[in-house]
Amino acid sequence: MKISGRNQLKGFVKAVQTDDLMGKVVVEIQGDQTVTAIITRDAVDDLQLKAGDQVNVLVKATSAMIIK
Amino acid sequence: MKISGRNQLKGFVKAVQTDDLMGKVVVEIQGDQTVTAIITRDAVDDLQLKAGDQVNVLVKATSAMIIK
Amino acid sequence: MKISGRNQLKGFVKAVQTDDLMGKVVVEIQGDQTVTAIITRDAVDDLQLKAGDQVNVLVKATSAMIIK
Amino acid sequence: MKISGRNQLKGFVKAVQTDDLMGKVVVEIQGDQTVTAIITRDAVDDLQLKAGDQVNVLVKATSAMIIK
Amino acid sequence: MKISGRNQLKGFVKAVQTDDLMGKVVVEIQGDQTVTAIITRDAVDDLQLKAGDQVNVLVKATSAMIIK
Amino acid sequence: MKISGRNQLKGFVKAVQTDDLMGKVVVEIQGDQTVTAIITRDAVDDLQLKAGDQVNVLVKATSAMIIK
Repeated sequence: MKISGRNQLKGFVKAVQTDDLMGKVVVEIQGDQTVTAIITRDAVDDLQLKAGDQVNVLVKATSAMIIK
Repeated sequence: MKISGRNQLKGFVKAVQTDDLMGKVVVEIQGDQTVTAIITRDAVDDLQLKAGDQVNVLVKATSAMIIK
Repeated sequence: MKISGRNQLKGFVKAVQTDDLMGKVVVEIQGDQTVTAIITRDAVDDLQLKAGDQVNVLVKATSAMIIK
Repeated sequence: MKISGRNQLKGFVKAVQTDDLMGKVVVEIQGDQTVTAIITRDAVDDLQLKAGDQVNVLVKATSAMIIK
Repeated sequence: MKISGRNQLKGFVKAVQTDDLMGKVVVEIQGDQTVTAIITRDAVDDLQLKAGDQVNVLVKATSAMIIK
Repeated sequence: MKISGRNQLKGFVKAVQTDDLMGKVVVEIQGDQTVTAIITRDAVDDLQLKAGDQVNVLVKATSAMIIK
């Protein structure tokens, strides 16, 4: 199975926080940088996300910007 | 100056490709991972992006997904 | 493998059009509705997308709007 | 009135859930598939969204991905 | 007809540029600021967009960031 | 420092509302129009956003749509 979204960053979940509707997932990716993803609470439950999980962060190329 | 977008990944531009309207910027971020950003041609020109540039990739937290 | 993106619509590729950087993929989903996805040319090539392919259209919940 | 967003999927609201800031709207689109949209609480109130409403789900083409 | 997308900025089209797949629409909104929208070529054709047109720019609230 | 995101609209914060995870920031931009941005609670705290602040609203061009 392949996804058109070009960016898949490998990392480990550092922290998960949820409320009724939304969830915040902090991922430490390779190279000592962190990525915060806001996803639905449903997705947090469905993927059973918890600290320590090995995950990929998926970002569509059209959603990324450049700062210089 | 601060930006609400939570994710700023440090890296170096590996390649830039443009057509009349759009541009593709490939960034090697720390940890030997690459991120592809699709931005406007206008932005490529305005930031004078070229291989070797030190940049940050900016991703809004609501645009990031998790794969597990 | 599971993706946090909540919406995966099953369908078949009706048409693919590409230029150097971008690609347009038209998918006929169940229920006789079509979805157009703009993805990178790289992704079209990587997934070898062509008319007739069985695919899922992935849409993050925060990217969907409602019209009433 | 026309919208540039290419994807408008016809369906009926199955469920609405809100907290102070956000709302989750689950829509059953034609073909027995469901779409979840995360919108603002303000929008849920403004459109007076409730189960049974006939709605269109709007997705910009650049926000759709393909899985194969 | 109402749209959940919270931000509709009134303005006039200043310029339209297209290639085979994509289109760039520059809109001068009230208050002497301009907004650039990248949409599909199909949408430019469907809405028959041209300089001088009175339009609204639609931005979903989750797509807006803040710089301070 | 420059950002590839093409749209930066100048304005003043009218209101800020937060819950545990998310924040809603209403900005009055030049020309008597308002923009609502949904960002993370972390970003609201980090930027110390409050009514009266002078800010720019940042919108990536690929996130803007046109209504005509």
